[in-house]
Amino acid sequence: MKAGIIGATGYAGAELVRLLSGHPEIDSLILSSVSFEGGKIEDVYPNFLGCISRPLVKAEAVVASADVVFAALPHGVGEPHAKTCTERGIPFIDLSADFRFDDDEATFSAWYGKPYLHPDLHKISVYGLPELNRDRIRKLADSGPVIIGNPGCYPTGASLGAFPALAKGLADASSAIIIDSASGISGGGREPSRSFHYPECADSVAPYKVGSHRHTPEIARNFAVMAATATTVTASTVAENNIPPPAIIFTPHLAPMNRGILSTIYIPLAAEWRAGTCNQKEVHPFEVRPPSPEMEDQAEKIRTLYTGFYKDEPFVRVLPASITASTGRVRHSNYCDISVHLDHSGTTLIVITAIDNMVKGAAGQAVQNMNVIFGFDEHAGLETIPALF
Amino acid sequence: MKAGIIGATGYAGAELVRLLSGHPEIDSLILSSVSFEGGKIEDVYPNFLGCISRPLVKAEAVVASADVVFAALPHGVGEPHAKTCTERGIPFIDLSADFRFDDDEATFSAWYGKPYLHPDLHKISVYGLPELNRDRIRKLADSGPVIIGNPGCYPTGASLGAFPALAKGLADASSAIIIDSASGISGGGREPSRSFHYPECADSVAPYKVGSHRHTPEIARNFAVMAATATTVTASTVAENNIPPPAIIFTPHLAPMNRGILSTIYIPLAAEWRAGTCNQKEVHPFEVRPPSPEMEDQAEKIRTLYTGFYKDEPFVRVLPASITASTGRVRHSNYCDISVHLDHSGTTLIVITAIDNMVKGAAGQAVQNMNVIFGFDEHAGLETIPALF
Amino acid sequence: MKAGIIGATGYAGAELVRLLSGHPEIDSLILSSVSFEGGKIEDVYPNFLGCISRPLVKAEAVVASADVVFAALPHGVGEPHAKTCTERGIPFIDLSADFRFDDDEATFSAWYGKPYLHPDLHKISVYGLPELNRDRIRKLADSGPVIIGNPGCYPTGASLGAFPALAKGLADASSAIIIDSASGISGGGREPSRSFHYPECADSVAPYKVGSHRHTPEIARNFAVMAATATTVTASTVAENNIPPPAIIFTPHLAPMNRGILSTIYIPLAAEWRAGTCNQKEVHPFEVRPPSPEMEDQAEKIRTLYTGFYKDEPFVRVLPASITASTGRVRHSNYCDISVHLDHSGTTLIVITAIDNMVKGAAGQAVQNMNVIFGFDEHAGLETIPALF
Amino acid sequence: MKAGIIGATGYAGAELVRLLSGHPEIDSLILSSVSFEGGKIEDVYPNFLGCISRPLVKAEAVVASADVVFAALPHGVGEPHAKTCTERGIPFIDLSADFRFDDDEATFSAWYGKPYLHPDLHKISVYGLPELNRDRIRKLADSGPVIIGNPGCYPTGASLGAFPALAKGLADASSAIIIDSASGISGGGREPSRSFHYPECADSVAPYKVGSHRHTPEIARNFAVMAATATTVTASTVAENNIPPPAIIFTPHLAPMNRGILSTIYIPLAAEWRAGTCNQKEVHPFEVRPPSPEMEDQAEKIRTLYTGFYKDEPFVRVLPASITASTGRVRHSNYCDISVHLDHSGTTLIVITAIDNMVKGAAGQAVQNMNVIFGFDEHAGLETIPALF
Repeated sequence: MKAGIIGATGYAGAELVRLLSGHPEIDSLILSSVSFEGGKIEDVYPNFLGCISRPLVKAEAVVASADVVFAALPHGVGEPHAKTCTERGIPFIDLSADFRFDDDEATFSAWYGKPYLHPDLHKISVYGLPELNRDRIRKLADSGPVIIGNPGCYPTGASLGAFPALAKGLADASSAIIIDSASGISGGGREPSRSFHYPECADSVAPYKVGSHRHTPEIARNFAVMAATATTVTASTVAENNIPPPAIIFTPHLAPMNRGILSTIYIPLAAEWRAGTCNQKEVHPFEVRPPSPEMEDQAEKIRTLYTGFYKDEPFVRVLPASITASTGRVRHSNYCDISVHLDHSGTTLIVITAIDNMVKGAAGQAVQNMNVIFGFDEHAGLETIPALF
Repeated sequence: MKAGIIGATGYAGAELVRLLSGHPEIDSLILSSVSFEGGKIEDVYPNFLGCISRPLVKAEAVVASADVVFAALPHGVGEPHAKTCTERGIPFIDLSADFRFDDDEATFSAWYGKPYLHPDLHKISVYGLPELNRDRIRKLADSGPVIIGNPGCYPTGASLGAFPALAKGLADASSAIIIDSASGISGGGREPSRSFHYPECADSVAPYKVGSHRHTPEIARNFAVMAATATTVTASTVAENNIPPPAIIFTPHLAPMNRGILSTIYIPLAAEWRAGTCNQKEVHPFEVRPPSPEMEDQAEKIRTLYTGFYKDEPFVRVLPASITASTGRVRHSNYCDISVHLDHSGTTLIVITAIDNMVKGAAGQAVQNMNVIFGFDEHAGLETIPALF
Repeated sequence: MKAGIIGATGYAGAELVRLLSGHPEIDSLILSSVSFEGGKIEDVYPNFLGCISRPLVKAEAVVASADVVFAALPHGVGEPHAKTCTERGIPFIDLSADFRFDDDEATFSAWYGKPYLHPDLHKISVYGLPELNRDRIRKLADSGPVIIGNPGCYPTGASLGAFPALAKGLADASSAIIIDSASGISGGGREPSRSFHYPECADSVAPYKVGSHRHTPEIARNFAVMAATATTVTASTVAENNIPPPAIIFTPHLAPMNRGILSTIYIPLAAEWRAGTCNQKEVHPFEVRPPSPEMEDQAEKIRTLYTGFYKDEPFVRVLPASITASTGRVRHSNYCDISVHLDHSGTTLIVITAIDNMVKGAAGQAVQNMNVIFGFDEHAGLETIPALF
Repeated sequence: MKAGIIGATGYAGAELVRLLSGHPEIDSLILSSVSFEGGKIEDVYPNFLGCISRPLVKAEAVVASADVVFAALPHGVGEPHAKTCTERGIPFIDLSADFRFDDDEATFSAWYGKPYLHPDLHKISVYGLPELNRDRIRKLADSGPVIIGNPGCYPTGASLGAFPALAKGLADASSAIIIDSASGISGGGREPSRSFHYPECADSVAPYKVGSHRHTPEIARNFAVMAATATTVTASTVAENNIPPPAIIFTPHLAPMNRGILSTIYIPLAAEWRAGTCNQKEVHPFEVRPPSPEMEDQAEKIRTLYTGFYKDEPFVRVLPASITASTGRVRHSNYCDISVHLDHSGTTLIVITAIDNMVKGAAGQAVQNMNVIFGFDEHAGLETIPALF
């Protein structure tokens, strides 16, 4: 099979090149790049020398000859290629935000500043979070060429962390869920700029776009879908049924590391899931006490629920009580590590998730989506065992 | 004047040595170290060669001859030295947790596992956050030898960020305030261990002690005091008046940097301080929208309130709208940078604070407290202008 | 086939676990650990959760049942295991220094402070740098169980960089070759200590053991062998023939990165290989000039020689003129990248090599040696394509 | 006194702003910037907020009103400002390469690609390495306005490390001296580019401009002057007397740290300064041995010579035998740390120097030059005691 990558010289594109080069079902790659057209991928990425050698051609040539097309383009320019692929009857897996909002053009255009060019395509696309939409992806793929809106990096970590709690009714619907995330600098892409200039971001943690990051509506939509009925409904169904979604608050930070997204998710618990309030109540209100054994039992109960929820998922690891998720341990892999905790008062569930932003947060998840579409082993091309460092 | 430092060879102790060596009112230093007694400070810290040369003696010798004593010891061992200093009539500035809880021994012992050795001393000690307790410190210092419980690093960043909101009634008392913090690795101290071994913490973000960090009760107490009446009451007053304190949730993370604490503080706003809900209400509930100009106005209003609140503080910088606080910009200085934001829905205040954990979070604040006690210029010894990197 | 690893919980051992888990010819692993005996590898390395699960047993059990044994032990304790393996007729691949010096016990004991326990074993062992000794390894493996002395990390990078120049007579025999190397912190191993404590090594470059590092004699011996006749002679042959070896000077540095060794190798050129002196001679002696085109031609000529020398090597990449070797581009792979340069005066060859110290510098090279011994595809288990970051 | 800085918004310019703001003899600053003219320095560097507030004006305004002018401009554009300052009778301290080569226009133009605009100015300028030229600077300053060519960052570290050995005749004149240096990323300046983009330079060591870096001729010239007669002669004197200079080879590397230059300098010793060859001679030529006590004695003898040579220098620290220079320990200070070693064979002196590239390697040295010119305490404005991290 021949895989095509449009925009192969950006960071996500190059990561796709690397992963697909080791994919057992992919025989050859065809790559395009606007910036380096006419060159070769190994000239742009000398780390590939001796492993991968491919010319960089026009996007049109990719779309015309591949059996599956991945697009790692800026937002708002991929739709014409999606159209061509659909007409040619081949899957189109889009890593931009263009196909992440189904037919909710209003939300997309409010945050990304562009209308849909081909609204019809957004009716047949599917949001490519396999843990949420695996069955829909398969079904659509069975009935014709599918368009995948590959999730954003932050929404992937946030959504996988909240999914069991939302789907199983642990969350108190009246309170906002807070997602506080830290990303490695590669999340900013390949283009040099002040924010990602080494002396200005090394040895420092810096929040950015507080209250205004574009991944906010994507997380909010995911949470709403997950809260509604978990795996079967679409966003539209939720809207039609007027199901009140959880409110969310999302703050991204830049951390001085190459890769990874760490998300700390604060989920206020519904009354029946709270624990340990008794160990706080006898003291004066502002005198707080360490977690009691009862609270640890409740945390373990929720941890068990998470473990069961994800037991068949190939890339979600719910960690035991002794281990807290951290980005270092998933580096270069497609895993999403999840650790489950309670706050000291037992009223809020704190879920930590760690992914590699370039893999599960971008290129790896796109490969996983391809595996789902074609019925390949979902691990294919994604076998990397994470090193400790 | 002669300043004494007990525990001079730990990271906080060495930072005190450095800061006090440049202090215009300090003529000489007397230093102690259990681990390196008989050696010299510049042998333990060769970065001091040519600048500072002092022998390391016994703690008793420090306490016997200094005009002011700083203790940078593990928790639970400093009280005898505090007693001696008080008897000698000189100030004792303690960087451990021993004197941070006033006479609330129950909370201290629940979290630190030790009783008070000299309960009476805790009745005459004061929590050394100058922005909160400057007047009390001065008053106590006027009337005799004072014992300062120098604040923890996380509580410093968290408390300065929430103080104006709490004191001015912006916070919705019925909801928890969440503090999500990231610390540089120096926060773990000088003793090598797995968690701070370079290959295990570099290039990774890792939460730790989720729901169980010892700074939780200190933050909770501070918030309660601040919420009550701002600068004049003590913790005891709040307890007596049965003022319900804000609930808090605190999660610390290790970030791969040498210094700094970044705190992202989520403060649910009381109804009258919310903004911009109108720009969310007309869309479907889970379709969220970017911040409207109205919301930015409200953020600016709160920012102005913060600026006014701290206008006379020498070490608090409330940043303009265009700048978000980050740890790199306060490195090696005693500043606490604060940036003020609203979440996309206008219902939650997001305050970011950045401090250097070794300076404003430890040694610098201790020097600031000394300056307050003796009526020195509060900048004395703390003039470092932060470099960008 | 069943591979055994003695000392599986050190960094090199864990890297072996990771690489061998993905090796197509290895069916199962048996692991030992003194520190964690009775536990499981995934408890010590949670990054392996869901990928690898193996109990940690006694070394004796490993040696008794494996088809090939890797030892990642401290220096001086592996010989008894080597003896048992030899008696059982299986290969023993030793990552310590114990078998790197053939029968030159005097040098080993001078630097490592221990005698050989079983001198006979050192007569049948071979130094496992495949680029130098592939044929000898194969021949020995054909005739019985082989013991491999897996090279040190610094000697690997240094030797591969100098090999073509030495074997082809480029080096001026009368001058010393200088090797200036920088290693990632993982080179210091898993045990926490002051030198590898994050705040003491981050954001700083620090030389260590200047003039006294134990890899010095290993590099010197390799250079002597290479200078003599390249691939066929042993160290003994060189000694017998009294071939004067090149003098070397070696300085290691710690650099603030997780992995990698960068070696900058200064090789004074024999007269016939020098270039460009003409562009220096017309100016005053201390007025130096930039490289002339003639010098770049000469550099290219030497580069071509290097490319030809290594043309059949699976893991050596001689880079084109436009690219300088750096550690980032070989991260997690078994490659040794080499770039070839002349100094501004055209009299000294400057060769830069970059390897991953944990892979080509330790565990990867050990796997490569196993592949050579058993006649497997030399890439087996070592297919990782390096990412840019 | 009023200090002017032309090019105040580059990294070196901003460091000058920071240092001069704390200088006891400077009352006010006047700053220019082409890129940000009309703005304020604290808007470009928010780390200055609350400490420094100055408008950014035209260079002409700076030159017209300051009492001393610092220029932190690109190479080749500062001469007109130097001319104006000279005409106005005020010192001009130039951080570019323009005035580093005295009247040797041929070398300057060969490496920097530009002729001298005002050759006469280069006859009255002086190379501003105070340890070499303090007396000349003072003498010139006494007789009129002086122009300082502030040294390059690499040449500062290299020259201070070699100076005693060259001046005292330790070096074997027939062999090249090798300088292998690693610089922090801030050395690349403020302008974002691929090479300094965080994901491309973090966690990696990368040599660059091997054999062709522009600091090569500056180092070569310094070494020649130092070898000739140490402190009194000028470059011209050396040329006239036809003194053969030492050959040098220089290789710069980028290391993943914010600040600092580590230089490892290999100086082949003249016969009478060698040591310990006896402990190598009895073994087979390629069997090398660890350093003997005799060699350590010789190293100590040379260390003592270095200590004596620099005994009156305020910013050079020759370290004791137990300590090896590293960049972390001089961070933010004007120190040059030097450690002295022998290679294992006792034939080559290995000198390690560490400086902060932005301070002793640029802005700090410029301030030191100003202090020399005006007869201020040489520590003025440069009192920073380096922290360990």
